[in-house]
Amino acid sequence: MKEHYEAFPKQEANHVALSPLSILERTAAIFPDRPALVYNDLSRTWAEVQDRVRRVASSLKKKGIGTGDTVSVLAANTPELFELHYAVPLTGAVLNTINIRLEAETVAYILDHSDAKLVIVDTAFSGVVGEAFRLNGKALPVIDIVDPDGPGGEQIGEAAYSDLVEGGDPEFPWQGPEDEWQALALNYTSGTSGRPKGVVYHHRGAYIMAMGTPVAWELPRHPVYLYTVPMFHCNGWCHAWAMTLMAGTVVCIRQVTGKAVFELIGKHGITHLGGAPIVLSMLVNTPDQDQKPLPGPVKIMTAGAPPPAAVLAATKALGFEVMQVYGLTETYGHVVQCLWREEWEDLTADEQAELQSWQGVGFPMTETVDVVDRETGAPVPWDGETQGEIVIRGNTVMKGYYKNPEATSAALSAGTFKSGDAAVRHANGYVQIRDRLKDVIISGGENISSVEVEGVLHRHPDVVLAAVVALPDEQWGEVPCAFVELKEGSEETEDSLIAFCRQHMAGFKRPKKIVFTELPKTATGKIQKFVLREEARTIANQSS
Amino acid sequence: MKEHYEAFPKQEANHVALSPLSILERTAAIFPDRPALVYNDLSRTWAEVQDRVRRVASSLKKKGIGTGDTVSVLAANTPELFELHYAVPLTGAVLNTINIRLEAETVAYILDHSDAKLVIVDTAFSGVVGEAFRLNGKALPVIDIVDPDGPGGEQIGEAAYSDLVEGGDPEFPWQGPEDEWQALALNYTSGTSGRPKGVVYHHRGAYIMAMGTPVAWELPRHPVYLYTVPMFHCNGWCHAWAMTLMAGTVVCIRQVTGKAVFELIGKHGITHLGGAPIVLSMLVNTPDQDQKPLPGPVKIMTAGAPPPAAVLAATKALGFEVMQVYGLTETYGHVVQCLWREEWEDLTADEQAELQSWQGVGFPMTETVDVVDRETGAPVPWDGETQGEIVIRGNTVMKGYYKNPEATSAALSAGTFKSGDAAVRHANGYVQIRDRLKDVIISGGENISSVEVEGVLHRHPDVVLAAVVALPDEQWGEVPCAFVELKEGSEETEDSLIAFCRQHMAGFKRPKKIVFTELPKTATGKIQKFVLREEARTIANQSS
Repeated sequence: MKEHYEAFPKQEANHVALSPLSILERTAAIFPDRPALVYNDLSRTWAEVQDRVRRVASSLKKKGIGTGDTVSVLAANTPELFELHYAVPLTGAVLNTINIRLEAETVAYILDHSDAKLVIVDTAFSGVVGEAFRLNGKALPVIDIVDPDGPGGEQIGEAAYSDLVEGGDPEFPWQGPEDEWQALALNYTSGTSGRPKGVVYHHRGAYIMAMGTPVAWELPRHPVYLYTVPMFHCNGWCHAWAMTLMAGTVVCIRQVTGKAVFELIGKHGITHLGGAPIVLSMLVNTPDQDQKPLPGPVKIMTAGAPPPAAVLAATKALGFEVMQVYGLTETYGHVVQCLWREEWEDLTADEQAELQSWQGVGFPMTETVDVVDRETGAPVPWDGETQGEIVIRGNTVMKGYYKNPEATSAALSAGTFKSGDAAVRHANGYVQIRDRLKDVIISGGENISSVEVEGVLHRHPDVVLAAVVALPDEQWGEVPCAFVELKEGSEETEDSLIAFCRQHMAGFKRPKKIVFTELPKTATGKIQKFVLREEARTIANQSS
Repeated sequence: MKEHYEAFPKQEANHVALSPLSILERTAAIFPDRPALVYNDLSRTWAEVQDRVRRVASSLKKKGIGTGDTVSVLAANTPELFELHYAVPLTGAVLNTINIRLEAETVAYILDHSDAKLVIVDTAFSGVVGEAFRLNGKALPVIDIVDPDGPGGEQIGEAAYSDLVEGGDPEFPWQGPEDEWQALALNYTSGTSGRPKGVVYHHRGAYIMAMGTPVAWELPRHPVYLYTVPMFHCNGWCHAWAMTLMAGTVVCIRQVTGKAVFELIGKHGITHLGGAPIVLSMLVNTPDQDQKPLPGPVKIMTAGAPPPAAVLAATKALGFEVMQVYGLTETYGHVVQCLWREEWEDLTADEQAELQSWQGVGFPMTETVDVVDRETGAPVPWDGETQGEIVIRGNTVMKGYYKNPEATSAALSAGTFKSGDAAVRHANGYVQIRDRLKDVIISGGENISSVEVEGVLHRHPDVVLAAVVALPDEQWGEVPCAFVELKEGSEETEDSLIAFCRQHMAGFKRPKKIVFTELPKTATGKIQKFVLREEARTIANQSS
């Protein structure tokens, strides 16, 4: 009877807040002596990692960091950043990993907007952080990560990361959050407004992400994982937590090159890695003398942009097994996977690559993925033609955007998260992206706001009007392409304008092509970006 | 800042109640045409299963079944019982699967205590249900499962299960619970009191169980699973839900024999199955002419009682890969697993089997497994010698015992679930059961309450005092062994007393051995069961 079934309060014994913190606790207890982290000549066991995490957390606590505080980090994929994925939440604080490719202006904005209380920075990036402080007119406490294998750089902090370890308490209690809805991470993403938005993750979502990923990727126990995905992207696709769950060995890599990846695969017997399609291109285009035969099956999860079928086919030909996935920062990364189907076995390699370039179906932890009409909200027919917007519902959708209730409401209030990506559904239910509704360009796995690039162009005295769209690019997936109306008599050239942009934004954001033309407009004067996107596709086809 | 991070309400888009219902929805959408259920000549796809589940749920709803109602089922492992694992929760009701080996008295108790509103019964068990109604003086609405491959039996219901399907609505909405803490299943277990206790499962736990099992068992996509575990035990170890998650094929089997299992393995390419150690013994002892070579690797999850190392070794010699797990009805089944360790590779087969007979370490979804001193609650040292009680904490621990707040409080209020099993922890952290604190005998995977057997013995006019303990048994794991003081001059014999028991309890519960002796007692007159357990071990050693 209903009242009897409802008579049970949740208790400590039967209701534990879901959190990735549990995962490291278990793995370190069961496999204390297995290699957990490898970086160049360094190797640490799971027991060592847990010990260091406790120490770092206790030191952070001593510095006043606690529940609800933001700890910002600018770091490469070194062991420190991996450890911080546990140490920061262990204090109750929120981990804010910042894209190390960003220019000082945006870093300044993030440090300010995020209410960062402490910044942990690899010395390679101390320059940009110092500049950001200057722009904000306010310095924050800093901890330096001094990596002997890094390029050097000035120490600007009050202590080094190694001091947090050495001065830390190895008995610091291992305590998860009381509430699984508690904030865990804050990840800024380029939005349509040009200003990055802070995506807030909760512990529950990260736990479910870590459980669902091995189920979907058929991860064995003890995978050997090469961390080619930047950990500042969706917390490295939440793989830090998933690989801990499987008691894997995580191999860190500071600078991803084709040669280095092949070498590490051979040296450590890498079984799994992830990366944007640019990583696939990099592998395919590695000079023959730098390619090494794979020691065993190597599985790659790729995401960040739809990979060209030709690149997929070439990567497969090298012996890699590629699974394409789709997701956004707002969904903790991958929530849609191009699940291999038995009925594809008999197709040609090209046909297979074409099908594998579709985005696919929901992950096990994804509750709903649908493509809906933007007006009516009704699902589009599964005809491979009718376009709609991808919408996602599930426990791996963000809490919302930090200090931005309007954007949160716009994204979440319809009962699903609106991705801003236009797609079709094929007869087998697989989703395929067709266009982007948001003005975001994805280049080498990085999101670039076209609005931001337009903003910089408009700061040039000779630019009357500028519109930026994605130009399909074999190497980078997409690059920014600007269409610009100049003042009469201006002597600016494509090169001079690109150079101007370079001074005001991170290198990867600058337009790679500029077309001087009158912009197509609607009757009311609105720029018709779809016309420009079409034009960009034509340019890409001509040049390829 | 804390207040900004806490400013996000849970929304439909980002907070969905965890429930196994989501799992079938996803698998049926992605793999509609793959075989889901196989039973003799019958085969159904995932789309068909979902269609039937909707229909059955709609028919149940029409009969007045809804949230918080109990639906009791007495059925063999046929497709109907699998489907009911989704159809009953889809109405919001609670699935109460009843052990089909129970005698009418206990079935009557369960039907009464559980507040069952409807009973779904395979005609093979209509006799015991009819008798239970008579004992309760009250009949309940009945639906008959008519299995042409079953042994027949009288139809006593107002309709057949097939009518629920045929008359059902294939458009019945697929709607999970609003609250993941909602009751999902009610599973009665033999307790120390002699009266079975009703263990209440919640949706959240079943979902997490389904996600954690593939991670721990390294389940591939599309496993072919033979359902040898009775679905009335912990909902078949929650494998119905886990196998759906992996889009497996579930092969049903009504009567488990060694011959049948070998045949089905060959016929369907079974890759996975589960079973009590009795199933392992059955395989090992299958006559040579009925054994078939395995078509590929077959993994067995075994639980229900510590398997003898010799049986483990013999099963392995046949080519099966066995993983021992440990759990209780109160923990949804398995929460501890004997994880294989790389350092065991070089040991002899006997040494390996010995180590694999340990219970092991926590599953991925288990938060804490510990062995603690019963007095102080402190963890025992990892010395392989000091005994304590196994305690478990996690999201796959029951809500509590139905209508039994005292027992619920006793089991859960210390912050962990007290298992009642005595164990040691080895130097590597692995748990090994040493004794049972509760008076439960586990025979062929079935729990038998020694108190219940003692109660029946005490009803015999010549029995002065009786105590029942577990007698180790090669075939069944354990069997009940009674120590009895008879009235002076009584002419009762072991055989006559066993025959008396047989009249008053299910066959598997009766003592297999009776020893006439004066019972050892403490100064205060309490029977010293530990002395009797020791004696039973001596008897077992002499007879083996």
